[in-house]
Amino acid sequence: MAEALVLERIKQLSLREIDLPQDLGPGDVRIRTEVVGICGSDVHYYLHGRIGPFVVREPMVLGHEAAGIVVEVGTEVADLTAGDRVCVEPGVPDFSSRAARLGLYNLDPSLSFWATPPIHGCLTPEVVHPANLCFKLPHNVTAAQGAMVEPLAVCIQAATKAQISPGDKAVVLGAGPIGLMQALAALASGCSEVFIFDPLDNKLALAARYDGVTPLYSRNGPPAEQISEATLGWGADVVFECSGASAAFRGIADLLRPGGTLVAVGMPIDPVAVDIVSLQVKEITLRTIFRYANVYDRAINLLASGQINLDPLITGTFSFADSIQAFERASEGRPDDVKIQIIMPG
Amino acid sequence: MAEALVLERIKQLSLREIDLPQDLGPGDVRIRTEVVGICGSDVHYYLHGRIGPFVVREPMVLGHEAAGIVVEVGTEVADLTAGDRVCVEPGVPDFSSRAARLGLYNLDPSLSFWATPPIHGCLTPEVVHPANLCFKLPHNVTAAQGAMVEPLAVCIQAATKAQISPGDKAVVLGAGPIGLMQALAALASGCSEVFIFDPLDNKLALAARYDGVTPLYSRNGPPAEQISEATLGWGADVVFECSGASAAFRGIADLLRPGGTLVAVGMPIDPVAVDIVSLQVKEITLRTIFRYANVYDRAINLLASGQINLDPLITGTFSFADSIQAFERASEGRPDDVKIQIIMPG
Amino acid sequence: MAEALVLERIKQLSLREIDLPQDLGPGDVRIRTEVVGICGSDVHYYLHGRIGPFVVREPMVLGHEAAGIVVEVGTEVADLTAGDRVCVEPGVPDFSSRAARLGLYNLDPSLSFWATPPIHGCLTPEVVHPANLCFKLPHNVTAAQGAMVEPLAVCIQAATKAQISPGDKAVVLGAGPIGLMQALAALASGCSEVFIFDPLDNKLALAARYDGVTPLYSRNGPPAEQISEATLGWGADVVFECSGASAAFRGIADLLRPGGTLVAVGMPIDPVAVDIVSLQVKEITLRTIFRYANVYDRAINLLASGQINLDPLITGTFSFADSIQAFERASEGRPDDVKIQIIMPG
Amino acid sequence: MAEALVLERIKQLSLREIDLPQDLGPGDVRIRTEVVGICGSDVHYYLHGRIGPFVVREPMVLGHEAAGIVVEVGTEVADLTAGDRVCVEPGVPDFSSRAARLGLYNLDPSLSFWATPPIHGCLTPEVVHPANLCFKLPHNVTAAQGAMVEPLAVCIQAATKAQISPGDKAVVLGAGPIGLMQALAALASGCSEVFIFDPLDNKLALAARYDGVTPLYSRNGPPAEQISEATLGWGADVVFECSGASAAFRGIADLLRPGGTLVAVGMPIDPVAVDIVSLQVKEITLRTIFRYANVYDRAINLLASGQINLDPLITGTFSFADSIQAFERASEGRPDDVKIQIIMPG
Repeated sequence: MAEALVLERIKQLSLREIDLPQDLGPGDVRIRTEVVGICGSDVHYYLHGRIGPFVVREPMVLGHEAAGIVVEVGTEVADLTAGDRVCVEPGVPDFSSRAARLGLYNLDPSLSFWATPPIHGCLTPEVVHPANLCFKLPHNVTAAQGAMVEPLAVCIQAATKAQISPGDKAVVLGAGPIGLMQALAALASGCSEVFIFDPLDNKLALAARYDGVTPLYSRNGPPAEQISEATLGWGADVVFECSGASAAFRGIADLLRPGGTLVAVGMPIDPVAVDIVSLQVKEITLRTIFRYANVYDRAINLLASGQINLDPLITGTFSFADSIQAFERASEGRPDDVKIQIIMPG
Repeated sequence: MAEALVLERIKQLSLREIDLPQDLGPGDVRIRTEVVGICGSDVHYYLHGRIGPFVVREPMVLGHEAAGIVVEVGTEVADLTAGDRVCVEPGVPDFSSRAARLGLYNLDPSLSFWATPPIHGCLTPEVVHPANLCFKLPHNVTAAQGAMVEPLAVCIQAATKAQISPGDKAVVLGAGPIGLMQALAALASGCSEVFIFDPLDNKLALAARYDGVTPLYSRNGPPAEQISEATLGWGADVVFECSGASAAFRGIADLLRPGGTLVAVGMPIDPVAVDIVSLQVKEITLRTIFRYANVYDRAINLLASGQINLDPLITGTFSFADSIQAFERASEGRPDDVKIQIIMPG
Repeated sequence: MAEALVLERIKQLSLREIDLPQDLGPGDVRIRTEVVGICGSDVHYYLHGRIGPFVVREPMVLGHEAAGIVVEVGTEVADLTAGDRVCVEPGVPDFSSRAARLGLYNLDPSLSFWATPPIHGCLTPEVVHPANLCFKLPHNVTAAQGAMVEPLAVCIQAATKAQISPGDKAVVLGAGPIGLMQALAALASGCSEVFIFDPLDNKLALAARYDGVTPLYSRNGPPAEQISEATLGWGADVVFECSGASAAFRGIADLLRPGGTLVAVGMPIDPVAVDIVSLQVKEITLRTIFRYANVYDRAINLLASGQINLDPLITGTFSFADSIQAFERASEGRPDDVKIQIIMPG
Repeated sequence: MAEALVLERIKQLSLREIDLPQDLGPGDVRIRTEVVGICGSDVHYYLHGRIGPFVVREPMVLGHEAAGIVVEVGTEVADLTAGDRVCVEPGVPDFSSRAARLGLYNLDPSLSFWATPPIHGCLTPEVVHPANLCFKLPHNVTAAQGAMVEPLAVCIQAATKAQISPGDKAVVLGAGPIGLMQALAALASGCSEVFIFDPLDNKLALAARYDGVTPLYSRNGPPAEQISEATLGWGADVVFECSGASAAFRGIADLLRPGGTLVAVGMPIDPVAVDIVSLQVKEITLRTIFRYANVYDRAINLLASGQINLDPLITGTFSFADSIQAFERASEGRPDDVKIQIIMPG
């Protein structure tokens, strides 16, 4: 039994004792959680009780963005010892599955993932996890930054799939938490300039604080016209669609240069209308991502080297005792909020 | 002035004298056409007078699938001489354009293309064309086969973009001329097996004549179920969408394995509904093609080596004098017809 | 204890009882071997007692090219049952290792591989192996063909890494067993024509039996001149170096077109002299391979579909009782011999 | 006739009048040169009279790293006007050549390149060049910086070919001008950390001024041991060989992780001994580059955005009148010198 933030059912959270698996296998480590971030998917389960086919049917602990300290290691763990500071990759695949052997372990259908029903998440003081999915944090990366590695990994996955060439120009559609991190990931991955669109002042003001990021109001006329002007009619090399809005796909090919790449990061709830011919006449490639694979070490490298600075995006901090308030705040979707984190009691 | 098959306006063809450019530039060759194939786009212009933004406003000579014999060469032409048998790449780009420098000369917006308004096509006894877009035919490739290189090139472009790994399994949706050639191109490009779907018996019967091609009725239940069964639940490595039907995109991700590739070859007239999330959870890549670039020599190699045999697909032959009848026949869209060619008078 | 072909020390083989691990783990299968091929590495251990850092210090069972029949399955094996005909991938990696997670499980340093000291091989009537490294043979693939999958997998790995575009022209240097299979793998992977060089008549005569393969005597002057003539001065798209001879690297860039790819398949014992500048002026990419990963299923597909026919390469067959003679024969390196196989007693 | 720095023969330079082509074709621009950098190849021609097959047989104007101001444009030039500040890509290919159509215009054998015999260079007050090889400099990029685009382009080409994934770790061998720029290019292209080796204090001290660059003495024991320690035994993702020294290739595979990439940037005069097997057991890919293609715009983007700062590398400036002294100084190869530039009289 351990205290945890439990989603009892739609819109009902409790901070209470719950029975959680605590057995330490030979390849596992026990981690005292330090910081846990709140993800849009956590909020979505809280508000709607489901994401696509994943339905919350039993009380479930939320949270999957964690950093903490190793307190105990299994008998076969060689690379970690008690006291190590780590962040945690929350999906546990079967590494010998057919998809995993191809290097696509994130696509293994048997993968279990924190806070995706029926798997409990990490908003609890201690978690047990396979050691080979825990990554040591360098001394200059804080626990709060470490808890940002999970969402950043999504953006590094997208930047990797985009196969950016050095000096490329990118467009990011949507300046929510993922859109903002995507802009930073694109810059750190070789882009010389990123244009980010959003209808909200606050989001763009935050984006404007970063060198290399040009904020553009999506209300100021069609994005394609703004990008055509900014690129002298040639178009962007890469577009990252991070809004998940179906409207974003209208005319999206017009943002791109011939041979450009579109990466679908946001997840539109319903099918969207895509003008295939507009993609064809420019031979555009659409790439898609699902979480990440083999990205954590590289995301940590970029944080440690200072090439990506996520501190301005951590806009709210709550104690574990106040974690229900934290979720209520996150659910409001205030324009000034980006990432809200919970400080664990450890 | 030369005799030519002229599209006067929608649904009105003439075989008549018309003024065509005949000047031979220093880098050009003059070609006596031998065989010209009828493409679906020729028929579309005949029946509808336009394809997307390209509208037939003046009388236009049709035809862009040509093989012939060089009869005269410009002063700077070194690689061809009179008497050479050639097939002709019908699009003329500016090779120093920004797109062309990247190797994407097919995406140069200034490209002019036979029988795409306002450019005249090749259904006339003699044409003048840049020598560097004319490709010698090996002795064992006939003019009729040479006139098939143009549509085959589309399929080789798609097979190239699909980045087939040897032994991959592919699905082709639609068994029209392009779908059938796509199946053959996929096999010649490394696929071990191609499953082709169509609702028509005649098309599938033709497909069944080829080793390695498995015809499947699209009426026999959802394609995804048929492919799941054929691949033991794993899915195909590559799907070539060659029908251009919006319905084909429904559930299309279910045909593919995790990490698989979808190539959009067919050109749907209207935007289609695409379930982005279904692509994301498998990290599917959608590639698109527009005609071809740097493919003619490779297409000819595969015909010459016998790895692709298109003879069964040439299902009708008309004389130039009967070319209006040829278009009428092609417009009927008979189930047994695949490619109809016109024998030029030369 | 089981009977096996044991390499006692350099140049001394015994067919005798030896203690072999026979415990069946929950994920393992027990296989009755049917056919085992003799590889050049087996012969090399027999004659020299070592390959690079791998030294035979204790008696070791030889053989790693096996097909057989499943006779018992572990408690957790779901995909195989007794009676299934399989071929066996002989290297067992840790699929959760850092290299394996990237899709490069063949590069996991902890991988154990049959008949690579100190691991015993498969020249014994029964072997135990992880089920997820055993691949079912289709009904139309014989056990003798199944035992060819292991060496063919090396060539499919090379063909995959070469990123062949459809219609490419390839050169293979060396017409030994691997060179010949490499030529067939290249053709099945999209090449339209393969030029294979060797100094021996017999090897080239065998190569000449295959459509699409052009045999060329390496004694008939510099290969580069022969290839320049055959490709009208342009060069080949891909060169597979399969001889392992240091002399083969002299002038090797001259065989290739600008932007071409060289794949090093053969393993030269000593460092070779490479003219880096000659590679640079054509921006040639050198790719290297080490065995294979994720290739067995695709190799089997290509055998089953008939796109690769290895039967002419199986040039000698011995009974298990005569396996010492089989190795003596293989050690002679007769010009007419390609692959010698041993029929197991099962 | 125009004044120019002329290499008369080995080790003999004159600043004198020489007859240079000054005709302005319809697609050309006339440029008043502002700054010209001295490249190692200029010095090499000065000292040795040849580089490989390129031999200086007639007096030749040196220099190929130029920035300047457009003073006149040809009749067909649309994108540039008099007064535009530009840097110049010095190689002029035939964009319709077979290599160029593939996007590899740098590999077109007919390409003419400034200061490569028998083509004159740009150390003269005015040059005529195709407009489509002149690139506008943004207002915040100086002429001195613009004259650095040419050598930087080499490094961007190498970084592009390396296919860096975000967060990769790279090694650069050699901290000469190209090695230093390669380190910066690697960081700007997505690397999180670059380790650079050199035997000279001064070079490493300069490297140490850049965030993300870790200087390592090549005298402090084998580089492989230093990299193994820095990467916890895994190895670097990418190695850029920029020394051109044959010794650098000894044990070079030990620097890399399984599946890593080696890029040969330096040009070793003689063939080097390469241990192919050491590359194979890690499936290392060796990529090579020759100058650059389609890189100038992207290099300028990275300078303009501030992601690459080359100012510390411009260590010496001479007037055009003193350009012979500039070459003498450059020939000394002082440890503190990196890039020496000549300010033109315009």
